[in-house]
Amino acid sequence: MDDVTFAVLGTGGIGRRTLDVSRHKEGLTPVAACDRDGVAVDEEGLDVAELLDATEGNVASGPEESADGTTPATPTDDYASDGGLASSASETSSDPRSDGGAAAVEGSTASDGVKQTGEGAGIVASDQGEPTETPIDDVIAESDAIDAVLIALPNLEHDFIPRIAERFADAGYEGVLVDVLKRSRVIGMLDDRAEALEDSGITFVCGAGATPGFLTGAAALTAQSFVEVEEVEIWWGVGLKSGYEDNRGTVREDIAHLDGYDVQTAREMSDEEIEDLVDEHDGVLEFRDMEHADDVLLERAGICDADDVTVGGVLDVRSDEKPTTTTVRVTGRTFDGERGTNTFELDDATSMEANVNGPALGYLKAAVLRNRAGDYGVYGPAEIMPSF
Amino acid sequence: MDDVTFAVLGTGGIGRRTLDVSRHKEGLTPVAACDRDGVAVDEEGLDVAELLDATEGNVASGPEESADGTTPATPTDDYASDGGLASSASETSSDPRSDGGAAAVEGSTASDGVKQTGEGAGIVASDQGEPTETPIDDVIAESDAIDAVLIALPNLEHDFIPRIAERFADAGYEGVLVDVLKRSRVIGMLDDRAEALEDSGITFVCGAGATPGFLTGAAALTAQSFVEVEEVEIWWGVGLKSGYEDNRGTVREDIAHLDGYDVQTAREMSDEEIEDLVDEHDGVLEFRDMEHADDVLLERAGICDADDVTVGGVLDVRSDEKPTTTTVRVTGRTFDGERGTNTFELDDATSMEANVNGPALGYLKAAVLRNRAGDYGVYGPAEIMPSF
Repeated sequence: MDDVTFAVLGTGGIGRRTLDVSRHKEGLTPVAACDRDGVAVDEEGLDVAELLDATEGNVASGPEESADGTTPATPTDDYASDGGLASSASETSSDPRSDGGAAAVEGSTASDGVKQTGEGAGIVASDQGEPTETPIDDVIAESDAIDAVLIALPNLEHDFIPRIAERFADAGYEGVLVDVLKRSRVIGMLDDRAEALEDSGITFVCGAGATPGFLTGAAALTAQSFVEVEEVEIWWGVGLKSGYEDNRGTVREDIAHLDGYDVQTAREMSDEEIEDLVDEHDGVLEFRDMEHADDVLLERAGICDADDVTVGGVLDVRSDEKPTTTTVRVTGRTFDGERGTNTFELDDATSMEANVNGPALGYLKAAVLRNRAGDYGVYGPAEIMPSF
Repeated sequence: MDDVTFAVLGTGGIGRRTLDVSRHKEGLTPVAACDRDGVAVDEEGLDVAELLDATEGNVASGPEESADGTTPATPTDDYASDGGLASSASETSSDPRSDGGAAAVEGSTASDGVKQTGEGAGIVASDQGEPTETPIDDVIAESDAIDAVLIALPNLEHDFIPRIAERFADAGYEGVLVDVLKRSRVIGMLDDRAEALEDSGITFVCGAGATPGFLTGAAALTAQSFVEVEEVEIWWGVGLKSGYEDNRGTVREDIAHLDGYDVQTAREMSDEEIEDLVDEHDGVLEFRDMEHADDVLLERAGICDADDVTVGGVLDVRSDEKPTTTTVRVTGRTFDGERGTNTFELDDATSMEANVNGPALGYLKAAVLRNRAGDYGVYGPAEIMPSF
């Protein structure tokens, strides 16, 4: 496979770490990145070290030096990758179609607890950065040289990322778009735009982070012993290393999944109400039957019915230890009439962010193959696996 | 993805079950199958039920009726998919290049303990079957209508399957070849022929059964939490439902992996010596540090060094219960400096054959995408996963 050039929209935690992790991967060249105020483009490949160093001040929690001298970002912005229920969401009410997404990229950083450090922060602080008021349009303008684009923006409104995709299609982009969204209903909104994406030559992979994403793919693989899958149980544990204060958006997003709450009620809660709720639960929130796109994505891939998929998990906002082990259990019937449950289990030492970026880049590369084969439209991660 | 048409070379256990399992899969149409004496071709799709019913007599052990009325084949011929150390191997000494592979297909059935039931057995007993002395050439002659070919023949000599591939290349076949071989050294022999395969337009996926195959892919997926993989431990358990008598070839093949034995010494043992050895071990053979292609296949995919992969397992020739649980453990370091071990575990109720056929067909379909994208040459299963 030839080298893959890619761009990152948004340089919050996911965007930064994707650039970081891509240095560990073969055949991936980052050629463009943008945030709300700036864009960096180099068709020969961005200097990731310089870019990360220069934009380090964008990261609020720490920054501690990690082993290789790079700065770890907050661990939870990808966990809440389609978050944006934080109060900052109001900043994104302007239409990203008309303003080049500047406000949206703002939302990206603000909503996941990554603080700006004032004037000149972000990509413009890099030698490679240029100021712009239309960062996404600037990336689209370079898209002939870009095989794939990772949309590392929160899906502030349900249709925010679908509308970003539409803009690429309107511009006639031929290539891959990947997001790391979580909510099932967004898939339908992407499907509504499938024809425009196909016409343009876009292969869109949605939900390619940890879950959905890594765990969806694991479920698809784990199902391979069976000719009929009866049940897929996805159960995750997340410990918020960076603490509650830096993860209000994430926590608010998840509260929408609690019994008696929904997106609207969670959005309307004050910070104090959220804090009270967290206190009531001693910092540990347990979620059952979440609206998580794993269900529709596994159905799309022909693995099982969406109804056979359950997603839940435990979030501890006061400890960096995972409160429960992330596990995928797939129960099915073999061709020879046996029934069994296969299991995929992540070590508690693997952080959620570690489980987002590798898979996201893997799906991105796989989608480039799809795209080159002429497969356009909307795909989930399990459809990008060997076609089990 | 459009429908995929495929052919099966060999109608021993793997071949039969692949046809059977393909009925549970979407978008797969079997259009050709051959055994030593016959070939069946239908571009509109073979009548699998008729073919399996008609060739049922080829299967020695039983046949018991399974839940859906089809006949389970012996469970171990895929387990020993590159077996052929049985005494019947001598039957295959003629060059398959010159005789159309008839002797080789014979070897396929004989070596894995599947007995013939005399004249008119096999595919010629089917309404769809035609007698032939050149079954493989006959399939090659139809290959314009075939997207992919599953080579369900044992790799009797190390270079047997590589030479089959060469014949397809010589004929200018454009499409996919998939095998389920096990031995590491065969990969190199395929690589020696990579240029001819590429020139022809062939995408060859080797080792796409259970292990290597399913478990190799699982290791590649399981590694995605890590930027550096330190160790991959593949550990399998197999219980021989059909008993030792029907699995002499398999057992002999595995004995070559025992301490103090190699391919040559195992080949030279008499049946009595084998039985004595099995008795000494009370029917339970444990294998450590097997020469199993998972190592080179994971290295090819960039997951880790071949030296970091260990493969072992336990075979019980006297019980249909698995003597140990099949497990893949991947230990690595995350981008944020943690170390952990992720685990993939198959339920003991899933038989080895259940774990061969689904993955083999999945890899086959994925390879067709690769082929259509213009990726020719030799690939391992982990390279067909999302390009992690």
